[in-house]
Amino acid sequence: MRSLTSWSDLDDAVWQACLRRALDHRQSREWTDAARGKALALLFMNPSLRTRASMELAAQHLGAAPVVLTPGQGTWGLAWDDAPMTEAAAEHVREAVPVLGSYADALGVRTFASLTDYEADHADAALKAVVDASPVPVVNLESARWHPCQALADAAALTETLGDPRGKKLVLSWAPHPKALPQAVPNSALLMAARLGMEVVVARPEGFGLASDVMDLAHDAARLAGGSVTESSDQALAFDGAHAVYAKAWGADLVYDDPDREAEVRAQHTDWRVTYDLMRRTDRGHFMHCLPVRRGVVADAEVLEDERAIHLLQAEYRLHAQKAILEWVWDLLD
Amino acid sequence: MRSLTSWSDLDDAVWQACLRRALDHRQSREWTDAARGKALALLFMNPSLRTRASMELAAQHLGAAPVVLTPGQGTWGLAWDDAPMTEAAAEHVREAVPVLGSYADALGVRTFASLTDYEADHADAALKAVVDASPVPVVNLESARWHPCQALADAAALTETLGDPRGKKLVLSWAPHPKALPQAVPNSALLMAARLGMEVVVARPEGFGLASDVMDLAHDAARLAGGSVTESSDQALAFDGAHAVYAKAWGADLVYDDPDREAEVRAQHTDWRVTYDLMRRTDRGHFMHCLPVRRGVVADAEVLEDERAIHLLQAEYRLHAQKAILEWVWDLLD
Amino acid sequence: MRSLTSWSDLDDAVWQACLRRALDHRQSREWTDAARGKALALLFMNPSLRTRASMELAAQHLGAAPVVLTPGQGTWGLAWDDAPMTEAAAEHVREAVPVLGSYADALGVRTFASLTDYEADHADAALKAVVDASPVPVVNLESARWHPCQALADAAALTETLGDPRGKKLVLSWAPHPKALPQAVPNSALLMAARLGMEVVVARPEGFGLASDVMDLAHDAARLAGGSVTESSDQALAFDGAHAVYAKAWGADLVYDDPDREAEVRAQHTDWRVTYDLMRRTDRGHFMHCLPVRRGVVADAEVLEDERAIHLLQAEYRLHAQKAILEWVWDLLD
Repeated sequence: MRSLTSWSDLDDAVWQACLRRALDHRQSREWTDAARGKALALLFMNPSLRTRASMELAAQHLGAAPVVLTPGQGTWGLAWDDAPMTEAAAEHVREAVPVLGSYADALGVRTFASLTDYEADHADAALKAVVDASPVPVVNLESARWHPCQALADAAALTETLGDPRGKKLVLSWAPHPKALPQAVPNSALLMAARLGMEVVVARPEGFGLASDVMDLAHDAARLAGGSVTESSDQALAFDGAHAVYAKAWGADLVYDDPDREAEVRAQHTDWRVTYDLMRRTDRGHFMHCLPVRRGVVADAEVLEDERAIHLLQAEYRLHAQKAILEWVWDLLD
Repeated sequence: MRSLTSWSDLDDAVWQACLRRALDHRQSREWTDAARGKALALLFMNPSLRTRASMELAAQHLGAAPVVLTPGQGTWGLAWDDAPMTEAAAEHVREAVPVLGSYADALGVRTFASLTDYEADHADAALKAVVDASPVPVVNLESARWHPCQALADAAALTETLGDPRGKKLVLSWAPHPKALPQAVPNSALLMAARLGMEVVVARPEGFGLASDVMDLAHDAARLAGGSVTESSDQALAFDGAHAVYAKAWGADLVYDDPDREAEVRAQHTDWRVTYDLMRRTDRGHFMHCLPVRRGVVADAEVLEDERAIHLLQAEYRLHAQKAILEWVWDLLD
Repeated sequence: MRSLTSWSDLDDAVWQACLRRALDHRQSREWTDAARGKALALLFMNPSLRTRASMELAAQHLGAAPVVLTPGQGTWGLAWDDAPMTEAAAEHVREAVPVLGSYADALGVRTFASLTDYEADHADAALKAVVDASPVPVVNLESARWHPCQALADAAALTETLGDPRGKKLVLSWAPHPKALPQAVPNSALLMAARLGMEVVVARPEGFGLASDVMDLAHDAARLAGGSVTESSDQALAFDGAHAVYAKAWGADLVYDDPDREAEVRAQHTDWRVTYDLMRRTDRGHFMHCLPVRRGVVADAEVLEDERAIHLLQAEYRLHAQKAILEWVWDLLD
């Protein structure tokens, strides 16, 4: 059974096949009946615009039927642990998931990070609970640690834009934000760019480094692909000569121990906003973001509206990449 | 016009045909175009996971298009009575329902019990208001008094599990719960088991008896089918030799007159939780529940995770049973 | 690219073609594959029952796939202006709309009136922001100023009911309501009836006149079609000899400057409720309303349940009219 939960679920052959397929799907925009008679259940623990719309339509492009569940909003909230269920949650994940799995041929699940329980987030415990309970393949639509659908879409957008991305410079640039956000997207973007063989610089303030095991995976991927991964706390310098700038806000790990202090520290770096002046330092670099993006906070409007920005292309590729992923999950790739 | 609102809507011939059809659907899992060009509007006054997902997919398995409305959440709340509509509700059921009926070829409706107005609940007034206003067939997706889709799914799960259920012992076992819940499921489970010709024991604390008219219907059904219906307030004794244990929490009728007192009384019976020790008294009995189930409150986790438990099979049969019901409603049964 | 945003988007030839098509669709109720391989994204800033259900099904009747987004409910709330996005809204309309447009072949959008910002409402600024940001056609599902889908449905219902509506008398009758409501529906109903060549009387209390530019458009349309538009503050007199009475509540423009005072003034006219006695003054006139309608506030129950009322027919025609509009937008009209 093929699930897509973390980075390691996609070996290089599958990754390449899905990437090519996503590029093809954008050209053809074809609707088929390949997955006619299959159902895709989408379970959202958190709000979603792009993911929900693109995943519903990815299924329908293939002839499959999507059904969307948002626990706690129109359906019961879910319980996750072993405590007697005397509180608000009326259903346990160990019932909800197998039931959906008996109706559907795959589950798409967004679990998100708690940002309060480091162990659970680091272990991707919520996603693992879903996978453990599911009789059908699970597609991770963003968990505490990973967002593989976004990563594949990003890789396709980069490939379409840069041609061969190998050896090109990508800056993953930490961005300010009023809230502490999870690290699933920066983790996935980092590994994606390393896998593409790019020269990757993670630019972030001191204290906002990504998890060491993720950095290790990134170094391994870069070595295999002939690229490199470095870190910098000098944003302006990092932008010099970049071909792509991937802006993304995330919270420091400090959020688990002292959320008030983390917010204070984070608020000291509002000058990490991506401006047009910063973009001028790049080699006609393409601005990237996974969306939703806060204008005037993460990046200036003129950066987003510049013709070199490809955040909308990344978002469009969510549809095409997820079609490819569903084809892989259901063994429909040629 | 064929509506499925209460028990009496399904005569024995139809009941048998739908039951066989549900069993067939689980084997074939076939998607057809039998109902292509038909629309099913689903109107939920209360949250739902299983019912919504299974009903959306039941329609799509048959080629019909589902559309889901949840008044008060994304749509206007509904008014039900004759008072001038000066409050929050912006639309009356006598407009909302015929409009949906002009778009769709059947309505699926969940109305639930008020638990505050005994007369209205006992008369299934909300469901009747929907049926009276509808120009198209109505399928009851759980009303104040009945849950016929659940009952048909339960009958199919029992039949698949026990072979011929006639003469087998089923205990409908009242369960503790932090809230007073409606009696629609126990009413329907009782009549379902009686109709199957089982030896049914309703095990419940004093004061938690089901409505006398429902008990009368159950006795009639049992007599016709060659089974029996008895009551007991000794849970452990009731479990002896049972082939199936259907656990379900419900509130006492006292809730209408004195909800605080009802909660006190209910809280005295938390020891009615179904434990593994209780299940040992059965004849390798199968645990049943309609879901959602509160672990550690209604039943222990080890009961739910035992291989003999069939609550997930019941839930899966919701899909297959509802396909059969839609086929009956739309005259598509062979 | 064909968008339907305001009145002027539909020239007479298209208007006539869509009107005939809507009448045909009600007869045939046909489902086709004409728009197979197309997706329709529906973006609701406000709750909806009729619009959502009828638009989802209109798309599916044509073989297209609908996907529904309700920002702020299951998805991020949207930002609309140029301020740095430091508040609750996590996504700007200038990202959300092009992304949806990259997934879909048309957008249906409900924006509604703010009732606090006169300039923005009068300019239909929110709808225009969506149209400006969209790479695909936009269908207005009710904006601050216009509700063209309702107008086409109303015209079809009138045509089916009256035969040739030219020269027949229609009263657009202001109605009481606990809230100040937008003028999109009365604006659109007025222009619709004028375009049909009817003798239109706008009956409303002093201070509740519609915008002067809308009245000017109505006079122009009436002149072209051989009808007339007049105003009256004597409701009973206006009803004399009417063939159709279109009741609709709306707030006075005073709401922008002094909402408390507007509410006081509005509350003085609760006697504008449409009663059976008022309807007796008409020439067996047909009661009309766009729904949702508050019984006992806007009109009495006996008016709504009279066989001459056609508010349910208007609602049904939403489905058929929107099918026609989608066919026009996608160039599928013969």
